[in-house]
Amino acid sequence: MSHRVLLPWPDFDVPASLSATCYDGTGPLPEGAVLDEVEFYVLPYDQGPRPPTLIPRLPKLRVVQSLSAGVETLLPLLPEGVALANGRGLHDLSVAEHTLALIHAAQRDLPRWFAQQATGSWVREHTRSLADSRVLLVGHGSIGRAIERQLLAAEAVVTRVARTARPAEGVHAVSELPRLLPEADIVVLVLPDTPDTRGLLGAAGLAALPDDALVVNVGRGTAIDTAALLAETSSGRLRAALDVVDPEPLPSDHPLWKVPGVILTPHIAGGSASFYPRAKRLAAEQLRRFAAGEELLNLVR
Amino acid sequence: MSHRVLLPWPDFDVPASLSATCYDGTGPLPEGAVLDEVEFYVLPYDQGPRPPTLIPRLPKLRVVQSLSAGVETLLPLLPEGVALANGRGLHDLSVAEHTLALIHAAQRDLPRWFAQQATGSWVREHTRSLADSRVLLVGHGSIGRAIERQLLAAEAVVTRVARTARPAEGVHAVSELPRLLPEADIVVLVLPDTPDTRGLLGAAGLAALPDDALVVNVGRGTAIDTAALLAETSSGRLRAALDVVDPEPLPSDHPLWKVPGVILTPHIAGGSASFYPRAKRLAAEQLRRFAAGEELLNLVR
Ligand SMILES: NC(=O)c1ccc[n+]([C@@H]2O[C@H](COP(=O)([O-])OP(=O)(O)OC[C@H]3O[C@@H](n4cnc5c(N)ncnc54)[C@H](OP(=O)(O)O)[C@@H]3O)[C@@H](O)[C@H]2O)c1
Ligand SMILES: NC(=O)c1ccc[n+]([C@@H]2O[C@H](COP(=O)([O-])OP(=O)(O)OC[C@H]3O[C@@H](n4cnc5c(N)ncnc54)[C@H](OP(=O)(O)O)[C@@H]3O)[C@@H](O)[C@H]2O)c1
Repeated sequence: MSHRVLLPWPDFDVPASLSATCYDGTGPLPEGAVLDEVEFYVLPYDQGPRPPTLIPRLPKLRVVQSLSAGVETLLPLLPEGVALANGRGLHDLSVAEHTLALIHAAQRDLPRWFAQQATGSWVREHTRSLADSRVLLVGHGSIGRAIERQLLAAEAVVTRVARTARPAEGVHAVSELPRLLPEADIVVLVLPDTPDTRGLLGAAGLAALPDDALVVNVGRGTAIDTAALLAETSSGRLRAALDVVDPEPLPSDHPLWKVPGVILTPHIAGGSASFYPRAKRLAAEQLRRFAAGEELLNLVR
Repeated sequence: MSHRVLLPWPDFDVPASLSATCYDGTGPLPEGAVLDEVEFYVLPYDQGPRPPTLIPRLPKLRVVQSLSAGVETLLPLLPEGVALANGRGLHDLSVAEHTLALIHAAQRDLPRWFAQQATGSWVREHTRSLADSRVLLVGHGSIGRAIERQLLAAEAVVTRVARTARPAEGVHAVSELPRLLPEADIVVLVLPDTPDTRGLLGAAGLAALPDDALVVNVGRGTAIDTAALLAETSSGRLRAALDVVDPEPLPSDHPLWKVPGVILTPHIAGGSASFYPRAKRLAAEQLRRFAAGEELLNLVR
């Protein structure tokens, strides 16, 4: 008997022992008889809140493959005994290059040049640089390491921070932040949302940064105390470049949108062209393993 | 007798056998008696057309140290027998990171997110990526190589082009461009202004690029036929991200300013914070060599 797989792509080859149905998260749901059979569900990526709501409606479900790195919102939806694999690694390059885009935009004054372009104004001024800047990289996991490679190629000076110290890799413990923040020109947060990371950078941490420092967040918005960051950027003392904020979506009348020296993008770091081929390669490998009865990659539980 | 040096920085130590006077290119000129003695002139960087006009007024001049990589406009001003050293290498990181800033801004749609930020709009969409993009890097000198290191860290796929082929280094000859352009998602020009580079990318070359390709220029504006680029970008077929254009300054009513899909910065790639320490290190080394009677670095003639 063939095992039923639910996939977000119509054009995808699966091993012969599996039979695939496409559900891309936006189109119509497959009919009930199909849903009753699904054993392996590859969740559509970044298609809003609807795809996960299908999980409790799949009685034969054995595996959920998320294409996201952060899966904290899925855990409460998973029935007992259903395995969950995440998309660790798929977004590394996409998030890393968007992180560099944000840092370059802030250091090289892109908002100013775009504004000048709109008025046809050729006024020149020297800017900050990323080269030689001291970057404190908080989070040295899969994405953090990809960011680091690009920072080092730009000859920034990187200091690494993770949960616990790993002296052999030059990684500092998060407990050392109070000592490290005053030495940072740029602090980059790339952390999951956990009870420990919430509010990790609050008023005291921000106050410890030197004047004109740039605060970058591409992990989860909850890691920064938004009110404290608003205060420090509104005064002009700090700058910020954020792909994630707390809350999301940021209400259209939130004052953070309008602060000079703050760059905001709407949580789009992970979603770029380089994601898709990587996501498909992972899905193909997972289905091969599933069909062969081998252990899956990226299991979260 | 001490040899007189003209320097753009007031706070700069020189070897004991030299005596320094500061001229930063904007403030008042040193008095005539000083100018009559100057043997070594470190040109102020990027201070407009005035500093070079001093060159013919220095009767004892022996060396001009430019802090620019491109010195084509200085050559006609140099009296017989005066040596010229350029600033090769000083701008590599600054230009390279601005090149990455331009590419990221174009690939990751920064103009769109900045416009959304102005209206407080949280609308999300996936973008292009730099990772996996095929980048044709035309110019593989000091700056080109620095750009390449940052492109490779972002996992772009780089093809190198210079004047002549260097197969051992994987460098193609410029004569191969007609064959290479159709395979490029992004073409980056980082070339000097010479009779051979003028109009290097004209209507035919642009037409050879695939739809939606991104044209990046950070060398000299003359390398691209502006009218042809205007036509291909106005139609929406190609995109562009330019730090240099022809003519410069671009007149405020030039149609290129307003083309959607074109990003323009006013020739500021070389001028960022990371330039200054490198410029001072080069000047110090050159003055040491001058005082010791050793051969100078970066001699152009
Ligand atoms: N903006 C976007 O579009 C986007 C896209 C994808 C992912 N993300 C976010 O990025 C996060 C990181 O992804 P990843 O793939 O790099 O995850 P990862 O490989 O699991 O790495 C997470 C890193 O965070 C560190 N960390 C966790 N808790 C910490 C704490 N309390 N204090 C200090 N460091 C802590 C970990 O430390 P140890 O090394 O000591 O374990 C590790 O270095 C994801 O969880 C997701 O929320 C955002
Ligand atoms: N935007 C800015 O603010 C800024 C700042 C600094 C410099 N620049 C510009 O960037 C230029 C490059 O600087 P660099 O330090 O990298 O110079 P470089 O080290 O001399 O390298 C120049 C490169 O251009 C190649 N080249 C020269 N003529 C060519 C032709 N006709 N066809 C194809 N390739 C050709 C050379 O080829 P070979 O390797 O075969 O010799 C070499 O690879 C400077 O000349 C300057 O105009 C701009």
